[in-house]
Amino acid sequence: MTSLGDKGSVQTQTKVLSQDSWTQVSCPCCVSKQVEPLVLIQLSDSVQPVTKRWLISLIETSKRHGGAALLAHPGEDECGDVVVVSAPRCTFLKATEDLGLCKKYHNEDMVAFSYHDKDNFSNVDDMQEFLTLAERQYIVKNELDSLQAQKKQRIPGIPEAPGVLEAWENICQKLVRAGVIKDIFPLHDQQRLNDLGRRWYSKKQIWGQPLDAIQSYFGSTVAFYFSFLDFYTWALVPPAFLGLVLTFLLPGGGGVVKEQAGEGVMEEDDDGPSVSGHMVQAVFSMLWSTLFIELWKRRSSSLSHRWGTLNLAERFAGPRPGFHGTLGLNPETGRLEPLFPEWQRQLRVGLVSLPLVGLLMGLVVLGMTCFYHGEALVQGFHQDSGSLFSGVLLYMPSMAHIVYTNMLGNVYHAVAMQLTEWENHREESSFQNHHTTKVLLFTFFNNFAVLFHIAFYKQDLPLLRKRLASMLIGNQLVNQCTEVVVPFIVDRFLSAPHKKEQEDDLEMDKLRAQRSLPPYPGLFAEYIELLLQFGYLSLFSCVYPLTAVLLLLNNITEIRGDAYKICKLFRKPFSAPVSNMGVWQTAFEVLGFVSVMSNCWLLLLSPRVQEFCLEGGISGKNIILVAILVEHVLILVKMVLAFMIPDEPDWVRIKREQIEFNSMQALGQQKL
Amino acid sequence: MTSLGDKGSVQTQTKVLSQDSWTQVSCPCCVSKQVEPLVLIQLSDSVQPVTKRWLISLIETSKRHGGAALLAHPGEDECGDVVVVSAPRCTFLKATEDLGLCKKYHNEDMVAFSYHDKDNFSNVDDMQEFLTLAERQYIVKNELDSLQAQKKQRIPGIPEAPGVLEAWENICQKLVRAGVIKDIFPLHDQQRLNDLGRRWYSKKQIWGQPLDAIQSYFGSTVAFYFSFLDFYTWALVPPAFLGLVLTFLLPGGGGVVKEQAGEGVMEEDDDGPSVSGHMVQAVFSMLWSTLFIELWKRRSSSLSHRWGTLNLAERFAGPRPGFHGTLGLNPETGRLEPLFPEWQRQLRVGLVSLPLVGLLMGLVVLGMTCFYHGEALVQGFHQDSGSLFSGVLLYMPSMAHIVYTNMLGNVYHAVAMQLTEWENHREESSFQNHHTTKVLLFTFFNNFAVLFHIAFYKQDLPLLRKRLASMLIGNQLVNQCTEVVVPFIVDRFLSAPHKKEQEDDLEMDKLRAQRSLPPYPGLFAEYIELLLQFGYLSLFSCVYPLTAVLLLLNNITEIRGDAYKICKLFRKPFSAPVSNMGVWQTAFEVLGFVSVMSNCWLLLLSPRVQEFCLEGGISGKNIILVAILVEHVLILVKMVLAFMIPDEPDWVRIKREQIEFNSMQALGQQKL
Repeated sequence: MTSLGDKGSVQTQTKVLSQDSWTQVSCPCCVSKQVEPLVLIQLSDSVQPVTKRWLISLIETSKRHGGAALLAHPGEDECGDVVVVSAPRCTFLKATEDLGLCKKYHNEDMVAFSYHDKDNFSNVDDMQEFLTLAERQYIVKNELDSLQAQKKQRIPGIPEAPGVLEAWENICQKLVRAGVIKDIFPLHDQQRLNDLGRRWYSKKQIWGQPLDAIQSYFGSTVAFYFSFLDFYTWALVPPAFLGLVLTFLLPGGGGVVKEQAGEGVMEEDDDGPSVSGHMVQAVFSMLWSTLFIELWKRRSSSLSHRWGTLNLAERFAGPRPGFHGTLGLNPETGRLEPLFPEWQRQLRVGLVSLPLVGLLMGLVVLGMTCFYHGEALVQGFHQDSGSLFSGVLLYMPSMAHIVYTNMLGNVYHAVAMQLTEWENHREESSFQNHHTTKVLLFTFFNNFAVLFHIAFYKQDLPLLRKRLASMLIGNQLVNQCTEVVVPFIVDRFLSAPHKKEQEDDLEMDKLRAQRSLPPYPGLFAEYIELLLQFGYLSLFSCVYPLTAVLLLLNNITEIRGDAYKICKLFRKPFSAPVSNMGVWQTAFEVLGFVSVMSNCWLLLLSPRVQEFCLEGGISGKNIILVAILVEHVLILVKMVLAFMIPDEPDWVRIKREQIEFNSMQALGQQKL
Repeated sequence: MTSLGDKGSVQTQTKVLSQDSWTQVSCPCCVSKQVEPLVLIQLSDSVQPVTKRWLISLIETSKRHGGAALLAHPGEDECGDVVVVSAPRCTFLKATEDLGLCKKYHNEDMVAFSYHDKDNFSNVDDMQEFLTLAERQYIVKNELDSLQAQKKQRIPGIPEAPGVLEAWENICQKLVRAGVIKDIFPLHDQQRLNDLGRRWYSKKQIWGQPLDAIQSYFGSTVAFYFSFLDFYTWALVPPAFLGLVLTFLLPGGGGVVKEQAGEGVMEEDDDGPSVSGHMVQAVFSMLWSTLFIELWKRRSSSLSHRWGTLNLAERFAGPRPGFHGTLGLNPETGRLEPLFPEWQRQLRVGLVSLPLVGLLMGLVVLGMTCFYHGEALVQGFHQDSGSLFSGVLLYMPSMAHIVYTNMLGNVYHAVAMQLTEWENHREESSFQNHHTTKVLLFTFFNNFAVLFHIAFYKQDLPLLRKRLASMLIGNQLVNQCTEVVVPFIVDRFLSAPHKKEQEDDLEMDKLRAQRSLPPYPGLFAEYIELLLQFGYLSLFSCVYPLTAVLLLLNNITEIRGDAYKICKLFRKPFSAPVSNMGVWQTAFEVLGFVSVMSNCWLLLLSPRVQEFCLEGGISGKNIILVAILVEHVLILVKMVLAFMIPDEPDWVRIKREQIEFNSMQALGQQKL
């Protein structure tokens, strides 16, 4: 997976970072001729050399003495505002075990890495083969993050007040607060990046993406996003095909239900296909979403096995930097660390976060209600008076609504972050999941409130169809523009001369050039885009069967755009090893269930279905009862299907159980 | 947990089984003065001494040579038709590790037992303290069950055809088929049984049950049933209280909704409480069922920790006796055993079992439909003619229906057993769960079909109320009679003189007396009774709020009755160590969700609610829509609640994670 380019590029990039200035290691297995610069710590301009020296020595110190056991390089000189960090082999290997990463054993199996048994693993002598670039950089970051003050002490070169470290205080966080550290980010490896780009978004590569190379360069968080995007795009082919068939081949089918037609004589020819077209689309969409999610779970677990993240031990590692609690012995691992009782966190989530989030969602609904009321009021007023003033007034409600929504959005984001911090999650993934869930709920609600209002309250299918089509096309155009076209133009044309100059510069400046890039905004926006798409598709597609076709077209360019973006337009992000998409997978799954309800409801509203039932002599009340019954049965079918399709392929299950069995055996063999 | 009575009773019971006739052990740690008779193998009368000798030698042989490494006793003489079996210490200890049982470590923690580390566990020198009686007996049975022919061989003393053992054939199953073994059952320990009975169902003991003693004597399967019954009975107190309040204190509230009253003037006084009473009952019942199940899960996991079954390793033990497949290396454990691919089993379950079960359920519905049609037909005919013949004919449909239902029931039970066998489950628990699910679905469907028909099709609340009350009272009376009173009378008065004689007999005859008891019919009937109860309560209780009171009264006697039954009226059952109630827990959980739907529906039907809405000017269609909305919201609330309440108490989670962490550490320490 890690290619030859890996080793080659170190030579080119480190040309100028004089190897002598790196920390000298004493451990014989860690000595190497070439040290690879992995992570850059950007200090403030005004930092004192004494502070920088203190920081470097802390980075270099062994763990036993409260350091990070990493390698540091002061950049050009002692006064410069960067520290370049790397790690020796022993630190890498121990961290690999602590993270619970699986690596290739000598028999080609993926086995949870054990430092004690390291000689039986493949490539263990060459860190650049053994760990991916993303893993190496994450390990360095992780070690920096876990630096803690051993006792109360002063930071040299910083005035008294912000410069006192309490015992067990997180050092990096403190230095960021004190303004010493401006940023910490992983360094790009230009040669590998260019290789990756060539295989990823060049014209030649149309089918599929180099997932393993992405995982190796950007880490599994990013790789899971692109794998999912890939999988999802392929999965759109059947519904797109069905949409095309229903729209263009079946007369009056599903898509463009002609509301005025289909009365009297033409019933026999025209009405049947329409109702059944609707039905086919709804039932298909229901089955498709279940199959899609279940198959993705299988794909996800096999990817996770391939990338060695099946058995992560985050729970048994140290807490995340923002975590606080009373110092005590962790009952599971027996290590001294801050503790915070689980039930207290649950109470905070259940009794504070949940109601607050509910309240803010209520405000969204309130805002929408006020908007509709205001609009009706103003329109009535305008029709009565017809003056210029009332004409201007017509725009007021929507403007007020936009301002209100934006303000609410900002408040919500701040509240969500504060709440999640206050919930005090021990693991980074748990923190991320809770934060994502909160923001996700709000964003989703905000985006779909209008459509739900039209579908469930106004019950106006033609309007829903128009709105859906315009949102789909509009959103896609706007997204593609803001995400790709604009940054591309900026990158190519506006900052091009600036770049040209640098070509001849020293390597050190290349490092510095990476600083000028904006930080990568994270995958949230990317995922939410997919989720909204999936929402349009599964919730309302039986109104507008071409949705899947539009999404398919969009995603094919989206893949390239996102790839270009992450490679060229932003600073490289850190990426923790993860074993799945986390909360996003659940979000897609939940949406699948909600879609059954909305499809049943839309079917019920469809004028054709209502006509059909009236002709059959079924009363309005009974139609609804039938619809409820159908909904419940479909949900049951969905649940049975989801239960029947195993979440991981047999071979992954066997591998996982092998690991479990081996650890049980090992426990049995060992005297405690 | 294991009391002093344990050791004392061995002396009384083994008085006559001469200790010299037991297998002589060579292992120094296994030598003991007294061997406790644990399990009795009942041979057929016609068995040849040579066959019996062969069987005994097989039982005695070490595992390495294909035996069971147990201790055997030939009973009175070589020709007798019993073999009494026990086990030496080494076999017990190894089996304890293989089962994955947790035992008290020297530091009082419950730790997965490891043979290698045995000296650090408490009581490891005294098997009667270390393992419970039920565990010892289960281990002996398990070892007997796992006897396999090492190569093709003949069983001595049995004619050619049935007497040839194929390689790897299960020996006990073969001997049962060949008619050599009639039965294998665990022996009662009269003294401990009497002690247990005194603490369990005597008059003095009213509050609570001696759960630990039950677990120790009858094993965790039985103990979980009684714990659940206990928990459930206590949980009935709040709904019973509410039922009493609604029925007797609130005028016209919930229970006895006077259909004719509440029109015109009395609205204000009378109508409010009725609707809100209904509402209160429905919402309370919904919340209560969720809390009940979630709290039971917590209780269940803490019991499981106390009984050392939190970490069972059934998956890594050998397959159950009925399992067959092609011989190969188990990829997880690396042992030679029959293999059968998981996906094939899934396919069998999904494509054959599921449709067949559905078909048979369909036949139940068909039968019911025919019955109602037939009855209407016959009644019409009787009204027209009024002859004696037509009067007789009136009984025909219900008789035909009873015959049909019974036949279908028998067919279904046979099909369910065959299907589950054919699905070829590797683990006993998986087999049991699939079999139970099938029978459960059918029994439940059969019992509730009538009520559902009345509630959803006829929509006749008064009839539903009458039917529910009569079913509740009728069922309980019949159950209590058949389960307890009749057997009690038979036991006390009819077989009493017979018993008296035996008092003076030898101990050997006491063993023989146990054979004359019928085998314990298993817990299925007991659990299904509780499930049906829970169904009446949660599905329809808002129609008849006194349900909980009746059930509470019933359960208080039920506990004593069931206890008396298992202690006195039946042969002792084998009981595998289990960590929870298995599929029954899921069944109760599912019922909780179904109950939300049925309660919403019943509320909708309630004449008071409909009146109330009509007065408020809400159309029939909108009432239904509101009801759907309420249903979906309630289900969401239930899911959130279930998610919020952790399934295990914090301290159990910590213990479990400790075990996980330790085995991860152990794996890391060990070179593979």
